[in-house]
Amino acid sequence: MTKNWLSKLKAEFPAKAVRTDEASLQANAGDAWMAEHRPEAVVFPANAKQVAQLAAFCHRHEVPLTPRGAGRGYVGGAVPVHGGVVANLARLNKILEIHAEDGIAVVQPAVVTGDLQDAVEAKGLFYPPDPASLKECSIGGNVATNAGGPRCVKYGVTRHYILGLQVALMNGDLVRVGGRTHKNKQGFDLVGLFVGSEGMLGLVTEITVRLLPRPQARAVLRAGFKSMKACAAAVQGVLQAGLLPSSLEIADRYTLAASRRHLGDNLVPDGEACLLVELDGQKSTVAAEAIHLSKVIRKLGGLDIRSAVSQRDRDRVWALRREMSNSLKAGGFTKLNEDITVPRSRLVDLIDFSEKLMKKHRLEIASFGHAGDGNIHVNLMIDPTDTTIRQRADRALDELFNQVLAWGGVITGEHGVGLAKKRWWPQATSKELRALHQAVKTTLDPKGMLNPGKFVDVKR
Amino acid sequence: MTKNWLSKLKAEFPAKAVRTDEASLQANAGDAWMAEHRPEAVVFPANAKQVAQLAAFCHRHEVPLTPRGAGRGYVGGAVPVHGGVVANLARLNKILEIHAEDGIAVVQPAVVTGDLQDAVEAKGLFYPPDPASLKECSIGGNVATNAGGPRCVKYGVTRHYILGLQVALMNGDLVRVGGRTHKNKQGFDLVGLFVGSEGMLGLVTEITVRLLPRPQARAVLRAGFKSMKACAAAVQGVLQAGLLPSSLEIADRYTLAASRRHLGDNLVPDGEACLLVELDGQKSTVAAEAIHLSKVIRKLGGLDIRSAVSQRDRDRVWALRREMSNSLKAGGFTKLNEDITVPRSRLVDLIDFSEKLMKKHRLEIASFGHAGDGNIHVNLMIDPTDTTIRQRADRALDELFNQVLAWGGVITGEHGVGLAKKRWWPQATSKELRALHQAVKTTLDPKGMLNPGKFVDVKR
Repeated sequence: MTKNWLSKLKAEFPAKAVRTDEASLQANAGDAWMAEHRPEAVVFPANAKQVAQLAAFCHRHEVPLTPRGAGRGYVGGAVPVHGGVVANLARLNKILEIHAEDGIAVVQPAVVTGDLQDAVEAKGLFYPPDPASLKECSIGGNVATNAGGPRCVKYGVTRHYILGLQVALMNGDLVRVGGRTHKNKQGFDLVGLFVGSEGMLGLVTEITVRLLPRPQARAVLRAGFKSMKACAAAVQGVLQAGLLPSSLEIADRYTLAASRRHLGDNLVPDGEACLLVELDGQKSTVAAEAIHLSKVIRKLGGLDIRSAVSQRDRDRVWALRREMSNSLKAGGFTKLNEDITVPRSRLVDLIDFSEKLMKKHRLEIASFGHAGDGNIHVNLMIDPTDTTIRQRADRALDELFNQVLAWGGVITGEHGVGLAKKRWWPQATSKELRALHQAVKTTLDPKGMLNPGKFVDVKR
Repeated sequence: MTKNWLSKLKAEFPAKAVRTDEASLQANAGDAWMAEHRPEAVVFPANAKQVAQLAAFCHRHEVPLTPRGAGRGYVGGAVPVHGGVVANLARLNKILEIHAEDGIAVVQPAVVTGDLQDAVEAKGLFYPPDPASLKECSIGGNVATNAGGPRCVKYGVTRHYILGLQVALMNGDLVRVGGRTHKNKQGFDLVGLFVGSEGMLGLVTEITVRLLPRPQARAVLRAGFKSMKACAAAVQGVLQAGLLPSSLEIADRYTLAASRRHLGDNLVPDGEACLLVELDGQKSTVAAEAIHLSKVIRKLGGLDIRSAVSQRDRDRVWALRREMSNSLKAGGFTKLNEDITVPRSRLVDLIDFSEKLMKKHRLEIASFGHAGDGNIHVNLMIDPTDTTIRQRADRALDELFNQVLAWGGVITGEHGVGLAKKRWWPQATSKELRALHQAVKTTLDPKGMLNPGKFVDVKR
């Protein structure tokens, strides 16, 4: 690190772009997870060129550089653990283009995901990825984590909608990968290299997304089940009936009990588990499929079935799902949200295993999430100030991740590794896979200055 | 290159795995494109470990190594231009697992794509990517080129269905990237790094694909249009009506004229352009959507509309599309198939431009393809033995690619760069993008022995 790098930074970048006041440092120290660490400076680049200039500066002076979107990540991925500079991309917040005929939009990274969705829907188009935090998170953060959401079961993850990127590299290059066509086999898939790289390979300064025609109609159906086993079987049953819902969500009895306390009985179906299914498409087809779906679910043991077609009714049904986090937090505990993913056939095994962990470690564990993908949020409800509970939780997580990996699952489905999952990274990966990560990281960031301290560091 | 590498190769690998006879060398010299070059030896590894051993051998002895699938590529990507060894993966041809509940299949690279589709459909599942050569091409080749096909407009390309890979690297490592879960944020997206890398970064030895529920029904609708302009407008109109067809194909009047000569008038609609639309989904919904689609297309000026629901009727309608290549070749010419992709709004411009090129360079040019993606096969019909025509074709292609790039299009949408498009690679890419390709290539293959002579070579 060059000794007087901070004064050099202030000399090289416009005064209004560089902040070193306490409030700015604190506001850029953490994300939605528990870890935080203050940077020495926060830079707000005005444009892509300035981002590249900042990357080159930090590379040259060996200053840690941590890119930051909306700071809504769940795993501490944006925490500048080695201090240095945070590149806060908040000023790159424009929707540059929505082109209906080409079926694309070009946006800057700080555009809020929900705002992009609203803007394209107003033009009859559709951007499917829908992380739960879509009203606050930014599309740049979605790219960094390859964000998912309930609709992935039908539509896939963020990666499937990114056609092109402009990326600032640590060597100071500003490079465009991919483009604006829906198909592109021009060279290696370097778009994919940056999507999901958690800000460790480059800084994304512009994003071209693929848009679909907006579905004309939606229908939501929710049902209770007398057991999680029956509910998980229904997930398979719906898919086996040849239906491809846009969402296929489940919740366990602990989540439902918390929801009943928080929302009242009316929004929560009877039973010990709940299935929530959304269909989308043409008006007439959604209507026909909803009737078919309802029959399928009744046959599979669904109780207290309710279906909703109008926006108002759908919102009421979805409120149960949307409020699950709040319902759980209303108990006064902190929620440790682990977004593990198992092969879909392991859903029941996973819930059984969680219940055993609860008893063994005397913990509250509530599970819900994207059953269609096998991506379940296993939530440990703890008081983080109680160190003995915190230790029990750590032991329980070790056992949970062990088992998930033994089933061929992964320790994170959509949140990323960040800091939160770093402890299990060596166990989740082979020596060869870690070596490959290391090689790729070292190629793009030879001095290891970009978002250091996360799951891959450069050996120096 | 170690001087006596060939005898060392024969000493290290089982006799039946190594071939140096003329017939084997010739059979592994080319693909479906015009270029060919004989290797010095062809190795048929029996398993993944042997592939990794071969990679390490070639790296150590500095012998060019070119991986080969079914040899159905359109761009010479599998041509061993620098000789050396061809790794023919034909013995790795097993479907290892189809798991309906997990929604996955695990296959070896030489499995024929169509065979995989048939096998999963028999279990009520669906593998969407459908390159035209699906009855002969292998899934390993599809991974190498990130293959597309008509269904991409709804379902996306091969990349969207690859969950995990086992890859042999040039350092001799056999590494698993990704896995068998539908979502996976465990580390960088290294699956994406290998998919579409045209056998230049590693040798894929096992592939885990994502499967969807099999759609219960399909309907196909074809219509003629009085002009390509009206037909391209109809492509936009269908999407604007909120319909997301599984395929959305067009053909121009030159293709239709050849089809009328080859297939007769009955299979070819009236008009100067043709639109072919396929819908899939639940029985009742496909029936309802087909009626709606038919109305939409009539309103958009569709002539001689025919729709088909039964397998037999659908096959009759699709025969026009499937036979387009043969109809064109029936004229006695060789077809230079350029799979350019333009932003979708440029479809009419592209057809107009092709017509101008035809006149200017006195060439036959016929265009058809995946209009929903903007991925159009522009086919120059030439006699390759006539050098003056060949020169005129080269000039026409230079102008075509110039224009496509100026529109923000790409020189290849699904076939790859290989040798066929190598000439335009520098023009299609920025200096920074080429440097990034070079850096990635050098990291994975530092001596540049893996599929050398293609669009990225290692500087030595």
